[in-house]
Amino acid sequence: MKLLEEKILSCGKVLPGNVLKVDGFLNHRIDVELIDALGEEFYRLFSSYTDINKILTVESSGIAIACAAARHFKVPVVFAKKGNNANVGKDVYSAEVFSFTKGTSCTINISKKYLGPEDSVLIIDDFLANGEACRGMIKMIEEAGAKLAGIGIAIEKGFQSGGKELRAMGIPVKSLVIVDSMTDDSISFRDDD
Amino acid sequence: MKLLEEKILSCGKVLPGNVLKVDGFLNHRIDVELIDALGEEFYRLFSSYTDINKILTVESSGIAIACAAARHFKVPVVFAKKGNNANVGKDVYSAEVFSFTKGTSCTINISKKYLGPEDSVLIIDDFLANGEACRGMIKMIEEAGAKLAGIGIAIEKGFQSGGKELRAMGIPVKSLVIVDSMTDDSISFRDDD
Repeated sequence: MKLLEEKILSCGKVLPGNVLKVDGFLNHRIDVELIDALGEEFYRLFSSYTDINKILTVESSGIAIACAAARHFKVPVVFAKKGNNANVGKDVYSAEVFSFTKGTSCTINISKKYLGPEDSVLIIDDFLANGEACRGMIKMIEEAGAKLAGIGIAIEKGFQSGGKELRAMGIPVKSLVIVDSMTDDSISFRDDD
Repeated sequence: MKLLEEKILSCGKVLPGNVLKVDGFLNHRIDVELIDALGEEFYRLFSSYTDINKILTVESSGIAIACAAARHFKVPVVFAKKGNNANVGKDVYSAEVFSFTKGTSCTINISKKYLGPEDSVLIIDDFLANGEACRGMIKMIEEAGAKLAGIGIAIEKGFQSGGKELRAMGIPVKSLVIVDSMTDDSISFRDDD
């Protein structure tokens, strides 16, 4: 998606440890007009998946784009909550998620009230690198007996293994941009085939 | 706001410790159509404040309604990040916020890049009880030399002191609903005058 590539080139910043900082428009300051365009694009990409009835993401940075997409699908969003004291009650699906960026792991939780066998779920998230967050959500979707319709990602780091592994599992993974490589002063993209 | 009152009555749940649980539509599962209506109402309430150029909230549950409002104002959202390891860099405004619901305090942070003297800020949040989160955000707005235009709240607990104290400071505080009292089996509302 050209619009997002241009935004990353103009406002993104590469930090040590393969971190692509996009806090100027995606996960600290939110460019709402851009986010709306991303939501519309997710809908276009998954519009043939007519049974999607729920969008699942993880707090916090997935929430804005998940809502922007959900508006077009006309379905609710459920966001998994982080932490053992996540204030979601005791009857939850849980998964352990390791963040390579932060070097720490955390538990994500979804109340069993909000995910069940009746659901066909589209996962939306801001980043896909090693795929840890997605695998955590997939585990919970499986435990709930729900169906995974697909995964929509704003920025995939194509040089890390998550996207390849999830696609090899037969899951429809669609990324708005795939970063092929990045250095301190250049970022290159490739197409999502 | 009648729509939100009805939603609270049909889906909200009162828990011990004056907790009003609205995770079925606001802060775990998100009813996106409702959230959009709340965003539109915030715009109507603050439409005469024509200099608003930024909406400020706190992760996570403020993000969806802040974005829904920002869409109408055509301004960006900045959400304060929680925790000492909040991944926002070192050049930040910080405030300590105590949550009476959780019985714990946490640090909230905003990168100095995203708040400054050029900003006229509308704070949007899901709940107002003792006003701790709002006071934290106000402190950061003051430190940044920005202007506080007003505060828009989805659900104010009118039986706690935050709203009264903030209004006494001369701040325009507008709540979509004010809960006057609540017990296990009843919730009553009063108008925001």
